Amino acid sequence: MNQPSIPKGTRDFSPNEMARRNFIFEVMRKHFERFGYAPIETPSFENISTLTGKYGDEGDQLIFKILDNGDYLKDVPTESLTGRNLNEITSHIASRALRYDLTVPFARFVVMHRNEIQFPFRRYQIQPVWRADRPQRGRYREFFQCDADIIGTQNLMCEAELILLFDAVLSELRIHADIRMNNRKILQAIALTAGVEDRFMEMTIAIDKLDKIGPTGVAAELSSRGFHEEAQTKIMEPFTWTDDFDGMLYKLEKHLISCEVGETGMNELREVKKWVDHAGLSTSQLVLDLTLARGLNYYTGAIFEVRARDIEFGSICGGGRYDNLTGVFGLPNVSGVGISFGADRIYDVMLSLGLFDDSVTGHSHILLLHTDEQTQLACFQIAAMLRKHGVSVEVYADQAKLKKQLKFANDRGFRWVGIMGEEELLSRQITLRRMKDGSQHRCAIDELAQFPWT
Amino acid sequence: MNQPSIPKGTRDFSPNEMARRNFIFEVMRKHFERFGYAPIETPSFENISTLTGKYGDEGDQLIFKILDNGDYLKDVPTESLTGRNLNEITSHIASRALRYDLTVPFARFVVMHRNEIQFPFRRYQIQPVWRADRPQRGRYREFFQCDADIIGTQNLMCEAELILLFDAVLSELRIHADIRMNNRKILQAIALTAGVEDRFMEMTIAIDKLDKIGPTGVAAELSSRGFHEEAQTKIMEPFTWTDDFDGMLYKLEKHLISCEVGETGMNELREVKKWVDHAGLSTSQLVLDLTLARGLNYYTGAIFEVRARDIEFGSICGGGRYDNLTGVFGLPNVSGVGISFGADRIYDVMLSLGLFDDSVTGHSHILLLHTDEQTQLACFQIAAMLRKHGVSVEVYADQAKLKKQLKFANDRGFRWVGIMGEEELLSRQITLRRMKDGSQHRCAIDELAQFPWT
Repeated sequence: MNQPSIPKGTRDFSPNEMARRNFIFEVMRKHFERFGYAPIETPSFENISTLTGKYGDEGDQLIFKILDNGDYLKDVPTESLTGRNLNEITSHIASRALRYDLTVPFARFVVMHRNEIQFPFRRYQIQPVWRADRPQRGRYREFFQCDADIIGTQNLMCEAELILLFDAVLSELRIHADIRMNNRKILQAIALTAGVEDRFMEMTIAIDKLDKIGPTGVAAELSSRGFHEEAQTKIMEPFTWTDDFDGMLYKLEKHLISCEVGETGMNELREVKKWVDHAGLSTSQLVLDLTLARGLNYYTGAIFEVRARDIEFGSICGGGRYDNLTGVFGLPNVSGVGISFGADRIYDVMLSLGLFDDSVTGHSHILLLHTDEQTQLACFQIAAMLRKHGVSVEVYADQAKLKKQLKFANDRGFRWVGIMGEEELLSRQITLRRMKDGSQHRCAIDELAQFPWT
Repeated sequence: MNQPSIPKGTRDFSPNEMARRNFIFEVMRKHFERFGYAPIETPSFENISTLTGKYGDEGDQLIFKILDNGDYLKDVPTESLTGRNLNEITSHIASRALRYDLTVPFARFVVMHRNEIQFPFRRYQIQPVWRADRPQRGRYREFFQCDADIIGTQNLMCEAELILLFDAVLSELRIHADIRMNNRKILQAIALTAGVEDRFMEMTIAIDKLDKIGPTGVAAELSSRGFHEEAQTKIMEPFTWTDDFDGMLYKLEKHLISCEVGETGMNELREVKKWVDHAGLSTSQLVLDLTLARGLNYYTGAIFEVRARDIEFGSICGGGRYDNLTGVFGLPNVSGVGISFGADRIYDVMLSLGLFDDSVTGHSHILLLHTDEQTQLACFQIAAMLRKHGVSVEVYADQAKLKKQLKFANDRGFRWVGIMGEEELLSRQITLRRMKDGSQHRCAIDELAQFPWT
């Protein structure tokens, strides 16, 4: 067989990477739970009908489908096969697909378990999702989402609560974050003001590309879609403003024509800001970003996107309010709001900024070395005793020269080794060696459980 | 849309189930790390060539394959389509497949990362695997395996270490376990003694069914496969013995014809037993079970299977030594030994035996109630302050009658509620109510961080 490989866009995680990733997950889990969010998990694959039609046409193309087992061709008409009718064939041979995000499975979960759930329901979910996207920096085909949602209430305290949750997690991870907020209703009012309210989706799709193609690109895109010049100017004007939260609101109020959706949007922004100010943020900044559009169709109110201030990396978290996501599954009028931490991007940002502590590694314990079978047996017994005291310890597995064993200890980065030779065995002691400075001393085996491993 | 559902053999996990499952995973993780095993993770899907041919024909049928994205039919010859040649078509339309176990991906990992790894390498891995098996009690299509392996040494201390690891985890979970051990070499010697050494695989396949079809069934199967009566008797005789470890070994020594493989097998069993005895087991028993065969072909030495003594449930853990699993990926002569905890079966056993502590639930914190927007704002601020002190706290999200809020607190099983009314707000106090006995008293907000929530 050739050298083995793994599929494009997927990754193996080594012990050191796992230690860092688990550090991130543990910080999230801790804060999710402090905020009262309870963990759930859903299956890795869903019935394909649960997923399709929720992420737009482009999203549907990126869903990984699972080939049915057994004779998967049995229901495929011969005409479809000979005509190579892909859509028709796919509908017969793949009844399940890998999760594309955590929000749609969550909506499905809420509907299926609505009789066991007390609303409002706060849940968090940390699981991988899969997208057949073209792999590139920071974009993988298998990656972890870490979502917190509260569903069954429209109270704007929830938006503020989630902003505090962003801040709590990212502050502990030492990422200085801009939490950018906008509101879909504001974008609707901007469309209304520009006289293009009937082309709202087209407008947001163009705006959503501002980061990639800049204002000139967005203007060009609007032109090519046939937006007339006056509408373009009206749409683009707010994106040229720079000001703080209240200043932006003030300018917006002057810009927008009087309309209910605009009033509601501005009130929602003000209200969320009020709640956030009341509790205060730790290291993050809340920014009103009128250019923020978010691609996903299901958002109806607040939308969020988070970036690290100290590095150009793109968005590391997102979220927003959806007023009727459970409706497609038969439970209408249940409003929810949720956020998603992109664990893989957060990892990349922390690595680039050097934010991982050296102590976060996969290896940091004690190795016991020996000189023959009798001393190895003694090490084995000592290791069992130490583990009962909560100490992490390994016994070198083979019988080998001490020099080889010490090299292994060094290569693996053990902090301490314990050496058990004939002399130590006879005196019921062990020689302890601190690897970083090579200092050594003897310790009685009976006192080893109390030894301060620092 | 109809009522949503999830694919057969998959499950949603609620907060309470998650709390219990995480409890199990945490116990495993803790002991894995104490024993010096370091975490890795591998992608959910592998190149299909990595997986096929490793699990026997039956296993290959149960692998979930992923449909290629885009025009997956482009390389399929028209004759294959019209001829409905499944194998040929599958080879063109599915280049990746979901992980079937953790051992084969681990072997692939070791080969790919052999230059970064120090051998012997101890790793653990807790991830889901997928099998298109017929779902039944204790058998799911998506389930978690929790594996610990040490690779790159033949030292039998490792077998003993893993037996101690079984014992450490299962003892903490309060499952009284029989750790059943056998050795593939003993089975080879039994085949040799019965004069059927050339039909070893057939023999083990029949023996492996002993649990399901009993000794009469195994004898019938051996007959139907054409094993003559004398061979049958020789094969079946050891399975009628009952004795302790040493007694079984003594009987075996008399039964087997003198042969190297038998000698080696018995020495290995004795050696492992010696190491285990030297450290001692906590609540588990080590049993020599000569009927233990294990289906997987790659085992070459010790094999393990664990059962709970207090319930009839089948195997909850397994494992064994494999002398050349990395060979198929181009790295020969690397011996390893590993064990696998079946987290889902352990969960089911613990639930049946009532082994979960009541405190292991998804909800156990504090809910703050309020009477209007001002008091809700105060609650929001108090919650933020308490969380900074590590307390898990929710604010009731909507403005509602206190009675409704209290009912929610009760339904959700909160231990404490804090009630913030106008009076409390003015006096900078909060009324605390312990839900289990309804006892109430006032606490100053400034002293709340020090309150003992018991």
